[in-house]
Amino acid sequence: MKSFTDRQIDEIKKKKSILIVGLDPQLQYFPESIRIIADGGYVGAALYLFNKGIIDAVEPFVVAVKPQMAFYERFGSIGVKAFEDTVSYAKGKGLIVIEDAKRGDGGDTAEAYAIGHLYPDDAYGFDVDCITINVWIGDSCIAPFIDMIDGTGKGIFVVTKTSFKPNSRVENIITQKGIKIWEELAEMVGEWGKGTEGEYGYKNIGVVMGATYPEDAVRMRQILPNSFFLVPGYGAQGGGADNAVKGVNKDGLGCIVSSSRGIIYAYQKGRFQCDGRDFAKAAEEAAKFSRDELNTALERAGKIFW
Amino acid sequence: MKSFTDRQIDEIKKKKSILIVGLDPQLQYFPESIRIIADGGYVGAALYLFNKGIIDAVEPFVVAVKPQMAFYERFGSIGVKAFEDTVSYAKGKGLIVIEDAKRGDGGDTAEAYAIGHLYPDDAYGFDVDCITINVWIGDSCIAPFIDMIDGTGKGIFVVTKTSFKPNSRVENIITQKGIKIWEELAEMVGEWGKGTEGEYGYKNIGVVMGATYPEDAVRMRQILPNSFFLVPGYGAQGGGADNAVKGVNKDGLGCIVSSSRGIIYAYQKGRFQCDGRDFAKAAEEAAKFSRDELNTALERAGKIFW
Repeated sequence: MKSFTDRQIDEIKKKKSILIVGLDPQLQYFPESIRIIADGGYVGAALYLFNKGIIDAVEPFVVAVKPQMAFYERFGSIGVKAFEDTVSYAKGKGLIVIEDAKRGDGGDTAEAYAIGHLYPDDAYGFDVDCITINVWIGDSCIAPFIDMIDGTGKGIFVVTKTSFKPNSRVENIITQKGIKIWEELAEMVGEWGKGTEGEYGYKNIGVVMGATYPEDAVRMRQILPNSFFLVPGYGAQGGGADNAVKGVNKDGLGCIVSSSRGIIYAYQKGRFQCDGRDFAKAAEEAAKFSRDELNTALERAGKIFW
Repeated sequence: MKSFTDRQIDEIKKKKSILIVGLDPQLQYFPESIRIIADGGYVGAALYLFNKGIIDAVEPFVVAVKPQMAFYERFGSIGVKAFEDTVSYAKGKGLIVIEDAKRGDGGDTAEAYAIGHLYPDDAYGFDVDCITINVWIGDSCIAPFIDMIDGTGKGIFVVTKTSFKPNSRVENIITQKGIKIWEELAEMVGEWGKGTEGEYGYKNIGVVMGATYPEDAVRMRQILPNSFFLVPGYGAQGGGADNAVKGVNKDGLGCIVSSSRGIIYAYQKGRFQCDGRDFAKAAEEAAKFSRDELNTALERAGKIFW
């Protein structure tokens, strides 16, 4: 079976896109036609229908979808069921699913998370392609995930440098070595990833690297020359396309760039504003626009993969 | 409404116990009589029935139950539904429920987690009394939880120094100040907790402080004189009772000590080993034993709350 990073790169090349779309359903931003379903007591159906509309619309332009688990858990097990249905639908359309869950624990608890979220061919659990993990604890936390991705085509991104501004005090603590803890963590990610390289030479353990810190992306690339970066913060959070591709390698690879609100709620304001009934059409146009904007930024930087 | 820490201390005094029990359902440890229910395809029912048996048995001896979300998510939305049913049942028995979920994100994602897990009086979500959170990101991560606990009787424990040995490399990184990052994080927790003090003088933002690092518990207490510690690692993980109460204040308060496998699977081996049909009885005896063992350790240390 192809490794996660190889599957990802195949998709990038096939679709000529490094864009992924965040599936972050929030009722207050839903178009009226879907919000009334939730208001009627069918929240799970509303989340699923909204996501289905978005997935159908953006599929040609994105490498993967990234559902953020917090927005499903917000509705308890009903929301989690809608998450599962969304994952199945997206996979059925051939899309890679990267679950943004930032899970982190140790020992057999970490193992339970790895099995529940990533394990394939099991009657229970989520079976996503990839998950974001938080390794505050350290090795004990990541070990079961490393075991899990071996030979299964699954991947992980370690939460390392997020896109939040200005309040990311913890990840920016300066260590004894005179660098920030996110940099020390990145060094560990490099170690953990040894031996996980796929056919294209990229490791199967990546990092989250926020688009809002372009200088840090350059530093991250020095530490992790052949790891993939999951780049949030492009679009609505304020990271421009040039900043979002800062960490891309000369071969045009190494980053997938995520946009959520800027695409899924594009109908609400800005360039693609329209009636809520056409929310999917607006998302389609916004996804196409974002894909092209990122490719133009890559071209400007002389980092062309196509 | 009483604050979380006050409710917790009331229970400690009423039950003369600082013990909490971890509800970590793992099929491979289940007694035959319940495992066959799971084998028959009714995993959710098996988890719920096992937990119900444990809750009924240990309720007189414990201040709270601590379900570990990883062991529910391992079964996807079906497991998460069993989690909800377990929470409802435990609350119905008057028990405080501390969800061990180690959630952590920023901005409106952190807000979605806070609402989904803690918000009371809502048609959806988990409505637990307290949750463990992971604040790798920093202030942006904890802010919505601080808002949420104000006036609602809810609480949070920040994952700071876990019980895992020896692989907790990240939390032990030395910072520029010559201390470990968990110590810097503890200092931040002290700041965040300012103004959240309850009637007993304890703050409503606590920390996770593993029983397997007794010297660190003493240091943690210096940093956080009036914060509660959630102490995992007592029992099966190897932390003895004397070590588990190391961080307790002179007033006998300041720690709740968690045991999971040592109580819920007590029927399998050791002092309370018995036929699997009596798993609840073994858990009851193990809980009573653990409560008394912790109280004896408190007495030995001259830290008596009763």
